[in-house]
Amino acid sequence: MRSKTAAEAKAVVLLSGGLDSATTAAIAKERGFSLYALSFLYGQRHVLEEQAAVRIAGSLGARQHVIQRIDLGAFGASALTDDIDVPKHASLQSRTPGIPVTYVPARNTIFLSVALAYAETIDSRDVFIGVNAVDFSGYPDCRPEYIEQFQKLADLATKAALEGAPIRINAPLLHYSKAQIIREGQRLGVDFAMTHSCYDPDDLGRACGRCESCLFRLEGFRQAGLDDPIEYIPT
Amino acid sequence: MRSKTAAEAKAVVLLSGGLDSATTAAIAKERGFSLYALSFLYGQRHVLEEQAAVRIAGSLGARQHVIQRIDLGAFGASALTDDIDVPKHASLQSRTPGIPVTYVPARNTIFLSVALAYAETIDSRDVFIGVNAVDFSGYPDCRPEYIEQFQKLADLATKAALEGAPIRINAPLLHYSKAQIIREGQRLGVDFAMTHSCYDPDDLGRACGRCESCLFRLEGFRQAGLDDPIEYIPT
Repeated sequence: MRSKTAAEAKAVVLLSGGLDSATTAAIAKERGFSLYALSFLYGQRHVLEEQAAVRIAGSLGARQHVIQRIDLGAFGASALTDDIDVPKHASLQSRTPGIPVTYVPARNTIFLSVALAYAETIDSRDVFIGVNAVDFSGYPDCRPEYIEQFQKLADLATKAALEGAPIRINAPLLHYSKAQIIREGQRLGVDFAMTHSCYDPDDLGRACGRCESCLFRLEGFRQAGLDDPIEYIPT
Repeated sequence: MRSKTAAEAKAVVLLSGGLDSATTAAIAKERGFSLYALSFLYGQRHVLEEQAAVRIAGSLGARQHVIQRIDLGAFGASALTDDIDVPKHASLQSRTPGIPVTYVPARNTIFLSVALAYAETIDSRDVFIGVNAVDFSGYPDCRPEYIEQFQKLADLATKAALEGAPIRINAPLLHYSKAQIIREGQRLGVDFAMTHSCYDPDDLGRACGRCESCLFRLEGFRQAGLDDPIEYIPT
């Protein structure tokens, strides 16, 4: 096991372009890590996430930002990768219970696996991911037990682990509400205007305000007592 | 949980183009699955693996063969993705102990994660991977405990799992020696001439005969009492 000063330590940060991952990256930076950002283009219908991720990585001074393309559309349909309509709701309370159609098969497993490869390649021992279980939304791969299990896998999966220095999966927002995430992001100076959350923006990039992701975001800002600086389609 | 006849069941088979994955695919076929092959181009120095995988998928009558590209070279160096010399040995006994430089960070974790996404998307409940622990070669992600741990992750990671039908990770060669794999492949009619194992072939596609992968293959054929039909660079 090597010892490193905080200033030398590298963190691979999964960066989607949303406010959770932006806040997670800011937390990693505050903990003294130099940031190696990792984003994915996996067949989304728009590249607004990618643009947001690039802006956030730049604003946080990331040393490197790798954008991986992976064609999940080659396997078949999913709301975020195909032409299924994104469900709209009047409020969070009026949603259908269960796993949303916006679920993407094995997404976080793929993201964390590639992050593990990135971390091991650059001799980093820390991966950061912005999942949270409170606004769980029904996704199986956002639960604490899922993250715990991925850690156990990481403890076996790599050369680094065999050599006694396994890669840690850090999920600092796991037990935060959206309002707590927003307050933490604000404390750390995250520019929320750079972030993108909407599943179904218009051609001008404005958020719809009625998809699940928008509803959680808006409710979070409301509970945090802050204004959301991004632009929404007028109703 | 749905019930399916064997004839309807789909299996996602990780197909590298080597003899282990070809034999694994033949086993899945014998068990009555229709085959959905998955291969990766991850920055290899040559595409002989890809060509072999395409031939094998065709010969086994795969319903679909998806080839995913993932740029592991974007993260840094590894013997299979960069310009490090592949080590050559006079025999298996003269190898250096430990994890070989041909180790690719988190490779099987990435492959299995993407296979999980594929399986869930096409409503398959079975992933097949040709890892084996006997000719372990020092790779951390070929060990039985690694596969067990990935299964535990798969039991949590997907919508399919939450709905009571988790995806099984099948590793039928896990405890086979290379000779046993070759005998099993022969029994199933695998055309070994289609397979490619060498880490360092020449421009004509001939195997070097001295890298670790060639040495395990040649020793396996010797122990199985069979001739290896592929072409080797004359010594």
